[in-house]
Amino acid sequence: MSRIEKDFLGIVELSDLELYGIHTKRAFANFNVSGKSVDKDLIKALVMVKKACAIANYEVGLLDEKIKDAIVFACDEILAGKYDDQFIVDRFQGGAGTSTNMNVNEVIANVALIHIGRKPGEYDIIHPINHVNMSQSTNDVYPTALRIATIWNVRELSEECAELQKSLQKKEHEFEDVIKAGRTQLQDALPVTLGQEFGAYAQSISRDRWRLYKVEERLRVVNLGATAVGTGVNAPLKYIFKVIEILRNLTKIGLARSDYLMDATQNADVFVECSGLLKALAVNLSKIANDLRLLSSGPNTGLNEINLPAVQAGSSIMPGKVNPVIPELINTIAFQVMANDFAITLAAQAGQLELNAFLPLIANNLLESLKILKNGIKIFRQQCIDGITANKEKCLEYAKKTPAIAATLIDKIGYDKAAEIAKKAILENKQIIDVVKELNIMDEKEAQELLNPFEFIKFKE
Amino acid sequence: MSRIEKDFLGIVELSDLELYGIHTKRAFANFNVSGKSVDKDLIKALVMVKKACAIANYEVGLLDEKIKDAIVFACDEILAGKYDDQFIVDRFQGGAGTSTNMNVNEVIANVALIHIGRKPGEYDIIHPINHVNMSQSTNDVYPTALRIATIWNVRELSEECAELQKSLQKKEHEFEDVIKAGRTQLQDALPVTLGQEFGAYAQSISRDRWRLYKVEERLRVVNLGATAVGTGVNAPLKYIFKVIEILRNLTKIGLARSDYLMDATQNADVFVECSGLLKALAVNLSKIANDLRLLSSGPNTGLNEINLPAVQAGSSIMPGKVNPVIPELINTIAFQVMANDFAITLAAQAGQLELNAFLPLIANNLLESLKILKNGIKIFRQQCIDGITANKEKCLEYAKKTPAIAATLIDKIGYDKAAEIAKKAILENKQIIDVVKELNIMDEKEAQELLNPFEFIKFKE
Amino acid sequence: MSRIEKDFLGIVELSDLELYGIHTKRAFANFNVSGKSVDKDLIKALVMVKKACAIANYEVGLLDEKIKDAIVFACDEILAGKYDDQFIVDRFQGGAGTSTNMNVNEVIANVALIHIGRKPGEYDIIHPINHVNMSQSTNDVYPTALRIATIWNVRELSEECAELQKSLQKKEHEFEDVIKAGRTQLQDALPVTLGQEFGAYAQSISRDRWRLYKVEERLRVVNLGATAVGTGVNAPLKYIFKVIEILRNLTKIGLARSDYLMDATQNADVFVECSGLLKALAVNLSKIANDLRLLSSGPNTGLNEINLPAVQAGSSIMPGKVNPVIPELINTIAFQVMANDFAITLAAQAGQLELNAFLPLIANNLLESLKILKNGIKIFRQQCIDGITANKEKCLEYAKKTPAIAATLIDKIGYDKAAEIAKKAILENKQIIDVVKELNIMDEKEAQELLNPFEFIKFKE
Amino acid sequence: MSRIEKDFLGIVELSDLELYGIHTKRAFANFNVSGKSVDKDLIKALVMVKKACAIANYEVGLLDEKIKDAIVFACDEILAGKYDDQFIVDRFQGGAGTSTNMNVNEVIANVALIHIGRKPGEYDIIHPINHVNMSQSTNDVYPTALRIATIWNVRELSEECAELQKSLQKKEHEFEDVIKAGRTQLQDALPVTLGQEFGAYAQSISRDRWRLYKVEERLRVVNLGATAVGTGVNAPLKYIFKVIEILRNLTKIGLARSDYLMDATQNADVFVECSGLLKALAVNLSKIANDLRLLSSGPNTGLNEINLPAVQAGSSIMPGKVNPVIPELINTIAFQVMANDFAITLAAQAGQLELNAFLPLIANNLLESLKILKNGIKIFRQQCIDGITANKEKCLEYAKKTPAIAATLIDKIGYDKAAEIAKKAILENKQIIDVVKELNIMDEKEAQELLNPFEFIKFKE
Repeated sequence: MSRIEKDFLGIVELSDLELYGIHTKRAFANFNVSGKSVDKDLIKALVMVKKACAIANYEVGLLDEKIKDAIVFACDEILAGKYDDQFIVDRFQGGAGTSTNMNVNEVIANVALIHIGRKPGEYDIIHPINHVNMSQSTNDVYPTALRIATIWNVRELSEECAELQKSLQKKEHEFEDVIKAGRTQLQDALPVTLGQEFGAYAQSISRDRWRLYKVEERLRVVNLGATAVGTGVNAPLKYIFKVIEILRNLTKIGLARSDYLMDATQNADVFVECSGLLKALAVNLSKIANDLRLLSSGPNTGLNEINLPAVQAGSSIMPGKVNPVIPELINTIAFQVMANDFAITLAAQAGQLELNAFLPLIANNLLESLKILKNGIKIFRQQCIDGITANKEKCLEYAKKTPAIAATLIDKIGYDKAAEIAKKAILENKQIIDVVKELNIMDEKEAQELLNPFEFIKFKE
Repeated sequence: MSRIEKDFLGIVELSDLELYGIHTKRAFANFNVSGKSVDKDLIKALVMVKKACAIANYEVGLLDEKIKDAIVFACDEILAGKYDDQFIVDRFQGGAGTSTNMNVNEVIANVALIHIGRKPGEYDIIHPINHVNMSQSTNDVYPTALRIATIWNVRELSEECAELQKSLQKKEHEFEDVIKAGRTQLQDALPVTLGQEFGAYAQSISRDRWRLYKVEERLRVVNLGATAVGTGVNAPLKYIFKVIEILRNLTKIGLARSDYLMDATQNADVFVECSGLLKALAVNLSKIANDLRLLSSGPNTGLNEINLPAVQAGSSIMPGKVNPVIPELINTIAFQVMANDFAITLAAQAGQLELNAFLPLIANNLLESLKILKNGIKIFRQQCIDGITANKEKCLEYAKKTPAIAATLIDKIGYDKAAEIAKKAILENKQIIDVVKELNIMDEKEAQELLNPFEFIKFKE
Repeated sequence: MSRIEKDFLGIVELSDLELYGIHTKRAFANFNVSGKSVDKDLIKALVMVKKACAIANYEVGLLDEKIKDAIVFACDEILAGKYDDQFIVDRFQGGAGTSTNMNVNEVIANVALIHIGRKPGEYDIIHPINHVNMSQSTNDVYPTALRIATIWNVRELSEECAELQKSLQKKEHEFEDVIKAGRTQLQDALPVTLGQEFGAYAQSISRDRWRLYKVEERLRVVNLGATAVGTGVNAPLKYIFKVIEILRNLTKIGLARSDYLMDATQNADVFVECSGLLKALAVNLSKIANDLRLLSSGPNTGLNEINLPAVQAGSSIMPGKVNPVIPELINTIAFQVMANDFAITLAAQAGQLELNAFLPLIANNLLESLKILKNGIKIFRQQCIDGITANKEKCLEYAKKTPAIAATLIDKIGYDKAAEIAKKAILENKQIIDVVKELNIMDEKEAQELLNPFEFIKFKE
Repeated sequence: MSRIEKDFLGIVELSDLELYGIHTKRAFANFNVSGKSVDKDLIKALVMVKKACAIANYEVGLLDEKIKDAIVFACDEILAGKYDDQFIVDRFQGGAGTSTNMNVNEVIANVALIHIGRKPGEYDIIHPINHVNMSQSTNDVYPTALRIATIWNVRELSEECAELQKSLQKKEHEFEDVIKAGRTQLQDALPVTLGQEFGAYAQSISRDRWRLYKVEERLRVVNLGATAVGTGVNAPLKYIFKVIEILRNLTKIGLARSDYLMDATQNADVFVECSGLLKALAVNLSKIANDLRLLSSGPNTGLNEINLPAVQAGSSIMPGKVNPVIPELINTIAFQVMANDFAITLAAQAGQLELNAFLPLIANNLLESLKILKNGIKIFRQQCIDGITANKEKCLEYAKKTPAIAATLIDKIGYDKAAEIAKKAILENKQIIDVVKELNIMDEKEAQELLNPFEFIKFKE
């Protein structure tokens, strides 16, 4: 069975399996770009917004109880995942989210119609725009939904960061006695412990958690009620006050109405801010991944200080080779997040006058960044960090061999003399302590104390 | 029914519906990041490479005819699209493509085994690595396949550019008499024709076609035969010569073997170059899309020089509004291509020593850019460019109103005086010609000739 | 007169006018890249750090009073700007700031030597490293100085943002009665006031101020005392506690010692965060500048809603043309800030193990972004925003012409019918109200009220 | 002494030392952003264009001989570097280069005036616009000059690339016997020679040279004669033909007139293309620099395969430390070039209608990229590459230790068995050959041959 729907451009035929309508069908045809549909969390958030709007419209007397109930029922069914295949619009799309909003309006209307025993398309009973979109515009519901979907994902990401931080701190303690050479600019530097290195990683991730926590403040400020241009046309004040409260309850997020709706409708800087913080996280993850790849390099021709857990065979030609694929995955994800930040920036700066037409691109890239970070960090922790072991003896060997411990001689003999000793040690491949002895710089006991690597890792009075 | 496969890390159980093997299964679990699998063209190109390798190995006497035939049969089945669901590894992955290569090796082996009446997993008969991957390494087959997949897509994109150029040139002729005001820095400038504007767009796209044509030269240089590090270990010279020839025939692309295989194995600059050219195309498309959005703005409160075809309703709140969603889509795609270029750059610069571990990220972003450009340009042409109409009267009105035609007075009366006239015309909202008359600058006939907008659009002796 | 200085690589001859020494001279030769020296604020901050260190070293008994006094004197002279020409190292440099630190150490030592009646180069008396750099490493003083220089500039930028916000709010009030058409996706939309548009700009800038205010929290956390790798080698604890306090007093900034010095020494994420926020500011500025260029377009062939102050002649060929060069400048600056953010990201993610060797690139780009934003915003305010005037009649004309006011009919007659009316109005170039009358949709008085543009700009009960 | 100049905005006082005029003075005040003036090569190219225009105008009878001679004289004086301090406009500027063009016009006019015994400002004799800018617009002279300045710098860069390639090839031969372990994904891989690695670097740079050579084709196409919007208003055809020929002779560059001047006036994609190629070069340089830093890491706690020449002391705290500051400089420059490419892309995509207002940002970033690459590559070659030495014994040790040579066993014993051997070798820290012997896999002589590292570096029959 099929039905005909019409708009001011003409008519379109839809099968009864298609619970979206003419606007969705047109958008699907217009935006046949990537074959990938819109992020599911964004759809879910939009449906929640629609539910809140229906209830608010009912409560202020604009919507019949029966229609409200049908819409609410439809929203709940969709939220339960029963109609995922009905959200078909491509994630690359023109317009500021209108097609996604229309897709949601139409599916809700038709599911509601079926629920009350009518057929899809009987919009004189329940209309996608007149009823489902009542008191709304794409320009307020879409940014509101995007903020909600972002907050959900920020919170999940934040939890993964917390878990990663814990794992890193466990390693900090596990490796607190593994003394090794530090390296600055990849050159031999002063001794540190492997535990301290993991502690530094943990610290950087804790800063990221703080940032994710703080950005929610600004993400929570929504423009629901602004309608098309921020002036609230078609949305009565009573409705505006109610709908935020209802949505707050539905989402359990402390949403607040922007006190300048026109600003919140047209400006996308908060997404740029959020993405910028994800980029800072990506930078920290990238740094950790780079370090782990260096420290586990070899094993026979590299640094070989640590062992990463083997998670798969590494080579189709070099048997037994195990590659650091998980840290590489993290670098890969970090690069993508940095690139997505660029797309978000480009989209945000291209806004014009009352609206930013490129919000769907922002949504696409921001939600992707959040998800691949979240998934990647979990994999990083479980498949890599938690299973790292140290090659304690190799590390100790490096600690003794680094010529940088000559630094401790500056106080005694000055920089220039200390530099000569270090140079001699490198050229003759000797330990500093042996050169010191050879040149009779100080008595052996003093030298032993001064040049003991374990003396370098803690602060002194 | 299920089977057990093992590697040096342990064992994995697979159902008989799973025609990939243990390496794929592990990789799938390790890289559960985005839910999106590897680009199908890349898989297809890899399978073609495998087919060529099997034939070459047979011809130099390394592979039994029976095994070769089974492998070739399997490759053909896969190329026919029968096993698309077996390529499951996530597009975000660690390693330089090893997991994708393993996925292909394993599916080919198992399809080949079934073909000769054996069961999946009977690798003592046909082995994913010993036979399917014979004389190969991920590090040569993967970059080779990526180059082939890129060339396919570059060619298709080039064809779409040619079509777009034609459509723009049709408009160039259609609008050759539509005189209008030029605008520089969005300010009133000298007259041009709408046709000239579309001609300029066509020119920019023709440059892009030329670039796409020329980059193929470097893309065609492959490192097949390099194996793991570029030294050809495990690949006999006879095989190396043969395999390129066979692959050339299979792909109908004029592939050439790099004369420095180690370079072609480790360096990814050609993909950066290619992506950089896509970015230039994106810049040109973006410029056209921006212009079309400006020229069609309004209709009542904007420039309203042209009409874009209406492809869908524009607003859920403002009835009858039609938005420039197709040009917006083009901007969106252009932004994404620019961002993808960033990801590709990041990945390419991160290569180390004998290999670039981040090729899968390059593949992902480069092939996405090519595809969304290709699809977007087709939509742009069919849903937008071809249907554009001009508001000829409105354009003419602008041509007469632009004060910039005072430029033509400089020769007669000098810059400073001409500037005064223009200033007066703007302040008093008059046409230049009226001010010229008013101030008795020259006789009316001379003024009419000098200030006729149609005189501005062609070169003069 | 000249002198000879030596290091472990050999000797270098310096004239007596050169108050830097051998390390600076070598670095100058090694990094002859751009001809632009290091940012002066960074030098100033480094000198302040040096002064604090000298005092702290003296107070804990490591440095003679006489030498301390000479160093402090030298620092004060340099801070007074007397030796600006002695800081010659190129802003593009290898190393994590070592050459800049050496330049500062050497100039301080030589100025101090001259002050006490010695000659430059008599380092046995006052040594650039043994004395001036005492208890320090590049790896703690350089990041500390960069944070201080950044805070100075963030504060100045914040003040400029505050002034800009005020100017925008003045325009918000000045234009509160200028009714006009809103535009979404550049298409006719619901009425707004010009004042509301400026108010929205002001709001976005106020968010930027808040972000700049909050990022200082993390910028204030310094790693002074960490020395080379974060373990505080060569810096006694007593000194570490003292030096922060002294530096806090000298700078009047509430600096705090990082509680994980190794982290603060190697990680640069806070600069990525800060730059990401500057990018959000750049996005907001770009949006405002784009809008102003659109709104002032024409005057005769564009929107012509506002007039930007003319600040210079616009064209060498079109007399009297005045271009929106100040908003264009703002776009230009915004683009550069976005690009600088990319450089900062690249540098930050490239850190390895105990140090980020690319801090000088971060410093260069971050301080440039801060400065060009600061200067640009001031110009924007003074040369553009403050002088903007409105074309009130033109705006009102647009308000009456926009077909979007048909939105207000949806409640009465439904979306589809309202869309028909809007379509008819556009096609026949009529006002909505005339179509409504023509079709007898409602009585005239009701239509007048419903479609009055002034009714669209305020929220309704 | 001072003079007064006026334009339609008012008057400005200039001292006689100021040979620029009112337009420059205003622009200097308007764009007080960075304190850095416009690139000198761009000025030089503009002056050459002006000289060509004066001659062409004279030859077609538009300009008096006396004025032409004075202008030509002035151009030559400026080209000789005598008035460098007169070009004061900031490199960050609004407008499409108008202020830079005005600066050049005014200085030429005043220098010409002085030359014929008049005073600066006597523009009734020689006028900056009427005479110096005759038959021109910023919109054609500025892009033309930018292309010329770009070509100059591309050629110089290309020469530096050629020198770098030679140096790398010298090392290729010098190190052809230095056998070592290859590393893929930083893990032990098959043997290669150090010479092969340098050969691969040389190959990548040779591709860059080819690209730089080819891009000149498109850079050579100029829009001189297009004037303001590409229609050649105010420029007679005879002049247009002549001026290109004259400019070709002056510059010795095979310039060609665009056959679609409107396109060449408004589109900036060729600069995006050029910058994209510089980015590919930056990627290759970055890869080389990264490798050199890795290979020279240690010396005592790193890979220590090669020694970079020591060019300066590395640390203010760790005596004798020498850091890889030159490769770090190269990474730094590469990062900046990548960021500049972003700025260029942003500017290019922001063009609107008949003009791209952001050409000065493109000029600034493109010329900076070219210069820092050119200078950086020279430093890289002279201060680093040419002085690299190999630690041959260390390299040989790695070649023997890499377990990847087990790959050669696959043909004999299959992948799984070979993997077991490699695994055992790593776990027990043995050479592959010893494990092979221990397990009696084959006789010793065969093993010796099969596992000899020197056998891995050349192709086999």
